Order: sequence, then C-alpha cells, then structure tokens
Amino acid sequence: QNRLPAFATHQVGVAGAVLDESNGKVLVVQDRNKTKNAWKFPGGLSDLGENIADTAVREVFEETGVRSEFRSLLSLRQQHTHPGAFGMSDLYLICRLQPLSHRIHICTHECLRCDWLDLRELAETSETTPITSRIAKLLLYGLENGFQHIDLHMEELPAVYSGLFYQLYHRPMPDGGKQYSKGAI
Amino acid sequence: QNRLPAFATHQVGVAGAVLDESNGKVLVVQDRNKTKNAWKFPGGLSDLGENIADTAVREVFEETGVRSEFRSLLSLRQQHTHPGAFGMSDLYLICRLQPLSHRIHICTHECLRCDWLDLRELAETSETTPITSRIAKLLLYGLENGFQHIDLHMEELPAVYSGLFYQLYHRPMPDGGKQYSKGAI
Repeated sequence: QNRLPAFATHQVGVAGAVLDESNGKVLVVQDRNKTKNAWKFPGGLSDLGENIADTAVREVFEETGVRSEFRSLLSLRQQHTHPGAFGMSDLYLICRLQPLSHRIHICTHECLRCDWLDLRELAETSETTPITSRIAKLLLYGLENGFQHIDLHMEELPAVYSGLFYQLYHRPMPDGGKQYSKGAI
Repeated sequence: QNRLPAFATHQVGVAGAVLDESNGKVLVVQDRNKTKNAWKFPGGLSDLGENIADTAVREVFEETGVRSEFRSLLSLRQQHTHPGAFGMSDLYLICRLQPLSHRIHICTHECLRCDWLDLRELAETSETTPITSRIAKLLLYGLENGFQHIDLHMEELPAVYSGLFYQLYHRPMPDGGKQYSKGAI
C-alpha cells in the first residue's frame, strides 16, 4: 500500500441555484465563452480555504449582483480529467440559495445574459446543460412537495484535534437524531 | 477578479459504512496510530482519478478484507487546514455500502481492531468520533424508516464536451423527475 504523503487531487467548483419561493423564479446566466445559449446557475471555483456555501454566495454576487444566503446542498458531481483542471479531478457542488435582493448587475466579463427564469421553463427548455436541467427538475419537485425532500443540511462542528470548525452535510433527521442517543426514551 | 488558472485545492477521503440490513450490524475499525479506542468506518484517500464509490469499496477491502458494493452517498464534510493535508483542504465523504462477504481479515498496518458492531451500540457509545456517532444515528434512522430518507443516489452521465462520464449525486425524485420534462402529462 502506498504510504507517500497525500496531495490535493481535486478542484472544487460551486454553483448557486437562487430560487425565489414566492414566485418560482430562479436566477440563471449564460456564459460569455463556454456553453453559449445555455442557461445555467452562476458559480465558480472555491478559493483556497473557502467554504462551499461561501463560494456559492460570492460567485452569485460577482456574476449577477444578486445577494443571497445559503439554504442547503443539493448535488455533487465528480469528474476526472476535467477540461481546465490540468489532469486533476473536479468536484462540482450545487447549493440552494435564498435571494436577499433581486436587481441584476451582470458581470460582462463572464456573462452574456442573466435573468430570473420561471423554474418550470428551465426544467423544460433544451437551452440548458444536462445538469442544470436535472437540478431544475429537482428544485421543482422540492418547490411543489417541500424542500425537505431534496435538501442536505449543513452544520458547523468543532474538530477533535485542531479546535477548528468543519462543515458537515447530510440529510436532516427528526429531532436531529437525539432519539438515538444513549438514555433517550 | 482573479483570472489565474485553477489548481487543485482539496484532497478527497472516503469512508464506507458497510451495513448488514439483515442483522443491523455495521463494520467498524480502530486505527493503530490516530484516534485510539475510537470506532470509526474504514476509509482513506482517493487515488488520482478514482471515483468516490470505488475508493469506499477499495479502502474497506484493504483495511478489513470485507467485500462490498456501493449503495448511496450519505454525508460530506469540508475541513480546511486539515492535519496531514499540507495546507490544502479536505473533503471527506461517507458512503453506505452493502456487504458481499462477512469474514474479517484485518490489515494490521493500519488497524488495531475491526468488528461488526450493532448499529444502535455504535450510535450510543462514547468510544467513537463525533462524525461516526452522527452517521450511525443517521443509518439507524434509515434502517428503521427506510433508506430513502437518508440516501443520495448516484448516476453516471456523459459529459457534453469530453464524452467522458461523470458521477452525479442527488436526492432521488419519483419517476426520476420525468414528470417535469416538457410535454409530460
């Protein structure tokens, strides 16, 4: 077995699906350079040391000018020999965000278009990427049946050794799982 | 905004929670060097280009001799300035695995002890790590109420550009979300 020290093998990209629950509209962009004529969620690479949720909120704001806050983690994609990742692998996470503002200030370096699109329209259109289409359907399912069906919740917990905090994502349990602790009735 | 090329910022570790649904027992190990007297799920770092599910199955086999297959993704932890990660960040994923064999052949380089422990015992004991305890409770909730409450499903899909396949993880939808496609009744 290999006992050499570990090294970083993955870059981490995060997209934010900013969904306005009051009207069913979701914030989407079209890239200037890459996937032309395809609506997708704004997002980009995490800076070193940056939390997943913070990357989503930052990238959404930088690309669209819309302020938002983290609600849940929805999806994870792993891809190897990703174009632009220099032989490394790529983890791409999609978060559900709640909008705190609505006015769009597009970043013209990165984006050609930006709009609030009806979620059902995004789920049905062919002018999007396969992942965006899939997550639009997942969001629609959540909007209609409750986000508790689609969400992974995040919790900050202290690390045993370092005292630093880490973020743990998993499905919610009733009462946070307390009924399974020792001595629970 | 930073336009420098991206680089890998994260190492990826994967643990396998091998749960025998027929008797509620789960496979756990105690490390030789690190967290002594603490039961945890076997696991380790992904090799470059290795899929999350494959790392879980490989590490479980290397450490315990137990063969298993992937069922779902349960949890994701992000930690920065992780000890042993050389200033990089760490993503640690826990998968639910189904056992294909039961006899333990312990790897004495890495493990001090290895056993099939009752899941409720693991959820209640103090001789474990906080994350293992939490995921044991989550598994117990799944075992009692159905794994559909705790699982993220995995699907392989072709990448638009490269033709290579990626793995997408998210919550299952009824009928795979087909009811939200265009023209669906």
